[in-house]
Amino acid sequence: MINKLVKKIQQTKAPVVVGLDPMLSYVPEHILKKSYGEFGETLAGAADAIWQFNKEIVDKTWDLIPAVKPQIAMYEQFGVEGLKAFEKTVSYCQEKGLVVIGDIKRGDIGSTSGAYAAGHVGRVKVGSREYTPFHEDFVTLNPYMGIDSVKPFLDVCREEKKGVFVLVKTSNPSSGDFQDRLVEGRPLYEWVGEKVAEWGADFMGDSYSYVGAVVGATYPEMGKVLRKIMPKSFILVPGYGAQGGTAKDLAPYFNEDGLGAIVNSSRGIIAAYKQEQYASFGPEHFADASRAAVEAMIADINGALEGEK
Amino acid sequence: MINKLVKKIQQTKAPVVVGLDPMLSYVPEHILKKSYGEFGETLAGAADAIWQFNKEIVDKTWDLIPAVKPQIAMYEQFGVEGLKAFEKTVSYCQEKGLVVIGDIKRGDIGSTSGAYAAGHVGRVKVGSREYTPFHEDFVTLNPYMGIDSVKPFLDVCREEKKGVFVLVKTSNPSSGDFQDRLVEGRPLYEWVGEKVAEWGADFMGDSYSYVGAVVGATYPEMGKVLRKIMPKSFILVPGYGAQGGTAKDLAPYFNEDGLGAIVNSSRGIIAAYKQEQYASFGPEHFADASRAAVEAMIADINGALEGEK
Repeated sequence: MINKLVKKIQQTKAPVVVGLDPMLSYVPEHILKKSYGEFGETLAGAADAIWQFNKEIVDKTWDLIPAVKPQIAMYEQFGVEGLKAFEKTVSYCQEKGLVVIGDIKRGDIGSTSGAYAAGHVGRVKVGSREYTPFHEDFVTLNPYMGIDSVKPFLDVCREEKKGVFVLVKTSNPSSGDFQDRLVEGRPLYEWVGEKVAEWGADFMGDSYSYVGAVVGATYPEMGKVLRKIMPKSFILVPGYGAQGGTAKDLAPYFNEDGLGAIVNSSRGIIAAYKQEQYASFGPEHFADASRAAVEAMIADINGALEGEK
Repeated sequence: MINKLVKKIQQTKAPVVVGLDPMLSYVPEHILKKSYGEFGETLAGAADAIWQFNKEIVDKTWDLIPAVKPQIAMYEQFGVEGLKAFEKTVSYCQEKGLVVIGDIKRGDIGSTSGAYAAGHVGRVKVGSREYTPFHEDFVTLNPYMGIDSVKPFLDVCREEKKGVFVLVKTSNPSSGDFQDRLVEGRPLYEWVGEKVAEWGADFMGDSYSYVGAVVGATYPEMGKVLRKIMPKSFILVPGYGAQGGTAKDLAPYFNEDGLGAIVNSSRGIIAAYKQEQYASFGPEHFADASRAAVEAMIADINGALEGEK
């Protein structure tokens, strides 16, 4: 799957991932009206609305991008109905040939981590049968509990040729509370980055590892250091756009082969029609606004990368 | 809810929580047969089996214990059907008057964390209506992303009078990978413990805070230090029994009022009938074996606490 991701990035010339993190406040009135009309103002109605919203955005952007990253919290908040919409979104994106990164940030120990791995990237056995409940291609993981929490995912991913992105340095302001604390003179995130490189070393695709890292766009200096610590790990970069990261900040996250990073934008793409510069599309054509925003993001990032050469 | 937890511990004289972490391999053949007979060897069949298994254990133990802790991974692995069984389990335990600690270990930033909080301990708005999808009383949280990831939960919990347990020092062998690393001469988990005390200080119940901590039974020396750092935080203690923690190890986790900690056992209770000492109950009476194991656990812990006085 890491090979597919690399290939799709090369084909699309777009090291970007669209974050499918739908909030009901992003969903245009005409979709809400239709879903609530059919299902009422219920959890099923909300789930239908975010699914219809996603579908239209995917229909209008899939040919431009290699991957999507649905944030499971935005679905889980609507309970099982929301999680049905999550699975439907994963399936639909995969039908369109997109790589799906499930932003689940799970992390637990032993058999518990194994259960998450089975449900998200593996197979779960029921009697003599096997099922793949959420079937993402990659997932994000929280490393605080150590290798015990990551290894069950690696075991499953090895079998299924899927991969993970481990949180190393997140994009939020308080990521420094613990991640930046100095351990033997070096910030904790560097130690986590070293573990990611170590875990990934014997789990390689053609040119990159199946074990990637999450490093926020909002900390380019740290991105530069982490790029060197984990040369074979793909870096998933949140924080571009709405959170304040600019294209110029992104160059250090890439390797000299022009690969090695994939930049996420969520709100900036899926709620583009709410921004002044895309307002002329109007709520009816919100997905066309998303397409325009994707095109602008690709140009912005490629421009900045060209400028570095 | 922290007041309810304290009161129930005092009433039952049992500082224990039963971990409802059902694996299909724990579920006796006669239940599997019935569920598969009705739903086939499907995810719905698996979900029904773990629900029936849980229900019988709760029916046989609810009067002895203050709380249960369902581990969501064990349900999530069966997809949306599994999560229906999770919600059903939460509801059923609450009907029995039990405090429900959702072991979800979520952690994300800003609005994303807010979405998890709404779905698990709060309310989610759909049009003019509000829903409480998973409605646990407490949840466990992963602190790696810092206060940004915890605060949205605290905001919701304050409104709903619910609470959290933040992972401080987990019970697994590799918890030391990052949690034990020295920061200014002190292990990271102590710094996390200090933050827990700080976050909890202005969010107090009658005698304990709504912000608790998870500290594994397998590290009693660390438990002793953390007890002092977080005097007003309840400590949720996993790792007793199957993971190797003994009752003697547990004394340091309690305050002098005999409160302040609640000890979890999962496999040791719910799969008790598979242990030699409870084998005579047989698979048909698995829940009676669980009751006997709960009684033994309570006696074991209270005996050790008495011995300390």
